[in-house]
Amino acid sequence: MKFSQTFIPTLREVPADAVIASHRLMFRAGMIRKLANGLFAYLPLGLRSFRKVEQIIRQEMNAIGALEIKPTVVVPGELWKESGRWDAYGDALLRAKNRLGGDLVVSPTAEEAFTSLVRDELSSYRQLPLTLYQINTKYRDEIRPRYGVMRGREFVMKDAYSFHTDDESLDTVYQNMGRAYRRIFKRCGLTVIPVQADSGAMGGSGSEEFMVESEIGDNTLLLCRDCDYAANVEKAACKPDYEVPLSPDSGVPAVEKIATPAVKTIEELCAFLKTDAKKFIKTLIYRAVNVELDLSGAGGTVKPELRPPSASGPAVYPEAFFAVAIRGDLEVNEVKLAAALKAAEVVLASDADVEGLTGAPVGFAGPVGLTTIPVIADESVAALTDAVTGALARDLHYGHVSYGRDFTPWLVRDLRTARAGDRCPRCGGELYEKKGNEMGHIFKLGRKYAAPMGVHYLDEAGETRVPTMGCYGIGLDRAVASVIEEHHDDEGIIWPMTVAPYQVIILPIKYDGAVKAAADGLTASLESVGIEILLDDRAERPGVKFNDADLMGIPYRVVIGDKNLAQAKVEVKRRGQAESRLVDAARLPEELAALVYGELGELNR
Amino acid sequence: MKFSQTFIPTLREVPADAVIASHRLMFRAGMIRKLANGLFAYLPLGLRSFRKVEQIIRQEMNAIGALEIKPTVVVPGELWKESGRWDAYGDALLRAKNRLGGDLVVSPTAEEAFTSLVRDELSSYRQLPLTLYQINTKYRDEIRPRYGVMRGREFVMKDAYSFHTDDESLDTVYQNMGRAYRRIFKRCGLTVIPVQADSGAMGGSGSEEFMVESEIGDNTLLLCRDCDYAANVEKAACKPDYEVPLSPDSGVPAVEKIATPAVKTIEELCAFLKTDAKKFIKTLIYRAVNVELDLSGAGGTVKPELRPPSASGPAVYPEAFFAVAIRGDLEVNEVKLAAALKAAEVVLASDADVEGLTGAPVGFAGPVGLTTIPVIADESVAALTDAVTGALARDLHYGHVSYGRDFTPWLVRDLRTARAGDRCPRCGGELYEKKGNEMGHIFKLGRKYAAPMGVHYLDEAGETRVPTMGCYGIGLDRAVASVIEEHHDDEGIIWPMTVAPYQVIILPIKYDGAVKAAADGLTASLESVGIEILLDDRAERPGVKFNDADLMGIPYRVVIGDKNLAQAKVEVKRRGQAESRLVDAARLPEELAALVYGELGELNR
Repeated sequence: MKFSQTFIPTLREVPADAVIASHRLMFRAGMIRKLANGLFAYLPLGLRSFRKVEQIIRQEMNAIGALEIKPTVVVPGELWKESGRWDAYGDALLRAKNRLGGDLVVSPTAEEAFTSLVRDELSSYRQLPLTLYQINTKYRDEIRPRYGVMRGREFVMKDAYSFHTDDESLDTVYQNMGRAYRRIFKRCGLTVIPVQADSGAMGGSGSEEFMVESEIGDNTLLLCRDCDYAANVEKAACKPDYEVPLSPDSGVPAVEKIATPAVKTIEELCAFLKTDAKKFIKTLIYRAVNVELDLSGAGGTVKPELRPPSASGPAVYPEAFFAVAIRGDLEVNEVKLAAALKAAEVVLASDADVEGLTGAPVGFAGPVGLTTIPVIADESVAALTDAVTGALARDLHYGHVSYGRDFTPWLVRDLRTARAGDRCPRCGGELYEKKGNEMGHIFKLGRKYAAPMGVHYLDEAGETRVPTMGCYGIGLDRAVASVIEEHHDDEGIIWPMTVAPYQVIILPIKYDGAVKAAADGLTASLESVGIEILLDDRAERPGVKFNDADLMGIPYRVVIGDKNLAQAKVEVKRRGQAESRLVDAARLPEELAALVYGELGELNR
Repeated sequence: MKFSQTFIPTLREVPADAVIASHRLMFRAGMIRKLANGLFAYLPLGLRSFRKVEQIIRQEMNAIGALEIKPTVVVPGELWKESGRWDAYGDALLRAKNRLGGDLVVSPTAEEAFTSLVRDELSSYRQLPLTLYQINTKYRDEIRPRYGVMRGREFVMKDAYSFHTDDESLDTVYQNMGRAYRRIFKRCGLTVIPVQADSGAMGGSGSEEFMVESEIGDNTLLLCRDCDYAANVEKAACKPDYEVPLSPDSGVPAVEKIATPAVKTIEELCAFLKTDAKKFIKTLIYRAVNVELDLSGAGGTVKPELRPPSASGPAVYPEAFFAVAIRGDLEVNEVKLAAALKAAEVVLASDADVEGLTGAPVGFAGPVGLTTIPVIADESVAALTDAVTGALARDLHYGHVSYGRDFTPWLVRDLRTARAGDRCPRCGGELYEKKGNEMGHIFKLGRKYAAPMGVHYLDEAGETRVPTMGCYGIGLDRAVASVIEEHHDDEGIIWPMTVAPYQVIILPIKYDGAVKAAADGLTASLESVGIEILLDDRAERPGVKFNDADLMGIPYRVVIGDKNLAQAKVEVKRRGQAESRLVDAARLPEELAALVYGELGELNR
C-alpha cells in the first residue's frame, strides 16, 4: 500500500485530553479519531491492527470448539426484564423506545440474548455442552469515558457463553477458555496477570480476570512476592495476622462502660484510651439490597420483608440491615460482604437508619447488646478477647469486650480488605499492590440467567433440568490500546509483529528516479512473499518520514537512498532497536521474510 | 467440521410468518433465528455465508482503492442536527438519550459521521479524491419489518462515501463503484437489474439502483423489451405519445363554460361530455415542503414565505403550493415533481387548502384564470389545443381550452408516471414492468451534506471550496437472502459456490466401522486441499440426513455407504442436479477440488 493512497493523518500535536500513551499515540499515528466523548472511529491504520486482534481471538475461540454467531446489537428490553437486569443495570444501560413505544436496549453485554436463543432450541442433554460466541459492538454509557479506546462508550467485545448439564462440564470449558485467553494475550504480545476475581455478587462460583498492569488501571491487584498468588483486591484473601484463642480468656474483667466525650474517630479514641486500633471492634451498619441468603434464623427484632420466589427469580429480601463487626485497623470489603449475603449490593446505612437501629448517633455502634439486626463479624473479631467497642449510646464505649462471652455474631466470614504488606493466603509471602486494567474475564455464572429466563432440558432420566452457564469476555479496543501501552517509547509505537498494521515500511529518501524504481521493485518482491508493506511515497522531507515511521511503529523499516543504492544496499532497522544495518538489496526479500515470519512464529507458537 | 460439533438446528416446520422462500429456508436450515420482530440472530451456518458475502464486498471495495474505517454505530444526535436529518428522517431513526440527557442516534446510514470525520481532517485539494467505507451494523425502525433478514430492523450495510474537488472526479469514482457493484453481485451469483433511479429529492445529480427481481419487491421497475433501458418507476421516462403542434390551432373556438352538475370523477365527466380522458387537463393542488427552487419569478398572489440561507443550509420556502396540470389519462409522479421543485417532499393539498386557493371545491381546479399559485404542467399538456378543464367553480368546467392561448404554465416538465405499455425513451420499444428489491445504490450526493456541515478545503489557487460527494450502499443481509431467493428449489437452498457455508457435505449412511473410517479419511484429505467440509456424523436416519443436506444446499454431496465402499466407490451429486454418479474414493479429492475450484473460478472471474 502506498502512503499516498491510504488515509493516515499523522499529527505532531498531542490532543489535550490524551493522558495515557496509547491514547496519545493512536491519535497522533492517525489510527483513531474522536466522534464524540467516548465514541471513536478507527481509521485505516488502526482498523488493520484491530482486525488482527479480532482474527487472533476468533482463531483461538474456534480452536476450542466455540461457535461464532451474530445476534443483534439492539435487543428487546423484554429480555432484560426477564433476567432482572433492566432494573439492576442502572444508567450505564442505553435504552431506546421504538416507534410503537416498545423498549429496546443497545447491548452492553449479551447474557440475555444468548440465553434466549438457547432457550428456544434446547430440548435434550445431548445438545450440551454448547459454547457460542460473538465479536460484536457493545455500548455502555460510562459516566466518565476517557483514555481513548481504553474506556470508550461504544466498544467491541468478544463475548462467549457456555451451557452445561453439570459443574464438571462447565469447569472443562472454563479451563479451556482460560488456556485460550492466555494464548490470545501471548499472541498479541500482551503481558497479562491472571487474578482471582470476585464472583459472588453475580451468583457465580468461579471467576478469573486477566489484567494488564497500568498506572491508570481501575483495579487494585494484590500479588505475592514468593508464589504466583494474584487476586483482585475485591476478592483477595490473606493469612490471619492473629491467633484465635482455643478458649475464652477467663482473666478478662467484665464489660465496663467508658465515657468517651467528644471522641469522633478511631484515632481519637485510641489516643484517648491509650490503646491501638487492633484492640477495637469497629461496627458498621450496612443496608443490603436483594438479599438471597436465607435470613429466617438470623435473629434481630427488625424483620426484613421477604419477596416470595417468582418466575423472574428466587425469594429475596429487597432490603435488609446488618451490623458488620471488624477489627479496628481493618476495612470491610463490600464485595466480600455482598457475596456472603448473596446480595445485589451493600451500602452503608444512612445516619437516620443507624440511629433508628442502634439507638445512638453514628460512631457508637457495637455488637454487645444489639438486638435489632443480625451481627456479622469478620474472622479477625473472633480473636478479640479484651476489646473496646461502641456501647449503643452517645459518648459511650464498652471496654473488656470478649468475643463469644459478650456477644455472638450470626455469621463469621472473611470480610476484610487485604492490602499490601498482608501475608499471602497460600504461602505466607508478602503481598504487594499493582494497578491493573481488566483485559478479559472468565466466569462461572451458574444458573443466574438460565433459571429466571426459564431455560430447560431433559436429562438422561427424562427429568427437566436447568443448565449451568459460563461467560467469557475480552475487550478488543482495550487489547489494541494495551498492546501500545506495553510496547512504545518516546517516539511512538513498537508493534509486536502479530498485530502490526503493516510488517515493513519502505522509506525512500526521495521517491524519484532509481530510488523510486528500487522502492517499487522491493515492495513488489516483498508483497509477493506475503509481507505487508507500507511504501512511504510522499513528497515529504526525510525527517518527517522518519518521525512518522517511528510514530506508527511498523516493525521493520527499510530506508532506500541514493548513496547506499549505488552499492546495491539498503538500510534495515527493527523499530525499538538502536542500530540499523546495511543489507544487499537483492537479498532483502529473503532476509526480511525470515525476520518477519520468525517473529510471527515466535508469538504464535 | 462435524455436524455434531456445530449448532445447526434444522427444522421441518415452516414458521407461520415466513412468506418468502429465503425467510422460510434460512429459518428451516438453522441459519437464523428471530430475537424479536425485525431482529434476527445469525447462527453458525448463516454466519458463514454472511461472512463470505462480506469478504467479497471488502475485496472489491479495496480493489478500487476505497479505504475501510470503523466509526461507531451509536453517534451523537448533534451531527444529525447539523445535516438537518434529525428532523427530516422521521420515526425510522432510533434515538436514545445518554445519562446526561444528550441525544444519540443508532445509525441507519452514516453520511453525517463520515462527513464529520473528513471535515476535521481535510485541508487541501491534494487530499482528494478520498473514498472511505465501513461494513457495519445499522438500525432502521421499520414500520413493518418482514420477510426475515430481507427487511429487518437491524442489518449490516457496506456504506461508502467519496469526497471530490469536482464532478469529473466524482463521476470516475461513481463509475468505478458501478463496476465494483456489478462484480460483487456476479461473484455472489446474483442477477441484478441496474436501473436509473431518482436522485433529485436528495439533491444529487446521478443515481443507479441495483435491483433483484422479487414478487415481494417494494420497487416497480420499467424495462424496455428492445434495449437495455431500465428505470425505477420513480425515475422512468417515456417517449411522448402525442405531438406538440408547432403553432396554436386557430380553428379552436373560444373557451366556453360547461355546466357539469353532479359529475364527480374524470370517468363520469368523459361519459357526460362524450369525450375521452386524453382530451382533459387534470389539475391537482400540491403542497411542497422545503422548496429550494427560486420562486421569485413564479407568480401567484399567495406568496410563500422564504427562509433565508443559514449555516445549516441554503434558502428554502418551508411551504409552497402549486397547481399541477397533466393530461387526464396520466398520473403525476410525485418523485419527479419533488425533484423539479427541489423540494424535500410534495403532498396533495388538503381540501380546505384547495378550496381556499381555487375558490372551488375539490374537483374543479384548472389552469385557466388561476391567479393565486403558480401552474406547473406536464409536457403532455403542451399538446392540448382543445381540451376540457375545471373552471374554478362548483359544477362548472371550461371547454375548448388551448395551451398557450388560454393559459401559460410557469414551468413545463416531465411529471408523468411511466407505465407498462409506454414507449422506451431511448429506442421507442415497449416498456414492461417488474417488481424488485433494492440490493445496492450508488448516488451522486453533491454538496447536500458537505455544505450544511461546513466541509472545506483550499484549492490550487488557495480559494476555500466545498467538496462534492458520492455515497454507495449494499445491504449484506438482503444480499444473502436474495441469493437464496434466486437459488433454491422445493427441497431447499442451492448455494453458488462462492457464498456456500460449506462447499462439500460428506454424508455417511451410518457413521460407523469402515464407513466412518472412509468418511473421516476423505474429510481430512479434502480439508487438506482447502475444501470446506461439513461431515454429517449424526446418528440420524439416512432420510433425515439427505433432507437436511438438500435443505442446507451445500453444493456437493458425497454419500458413503457400505455397498459402494466395498467397490471403493462413493456417490457424488451436485445440489440442484438430478443425477448422482459413482467416483473412485481414491480420486475424490482430486475430482472435487477440480469441481469446487472450477466453480469458484467461474464466479470470481
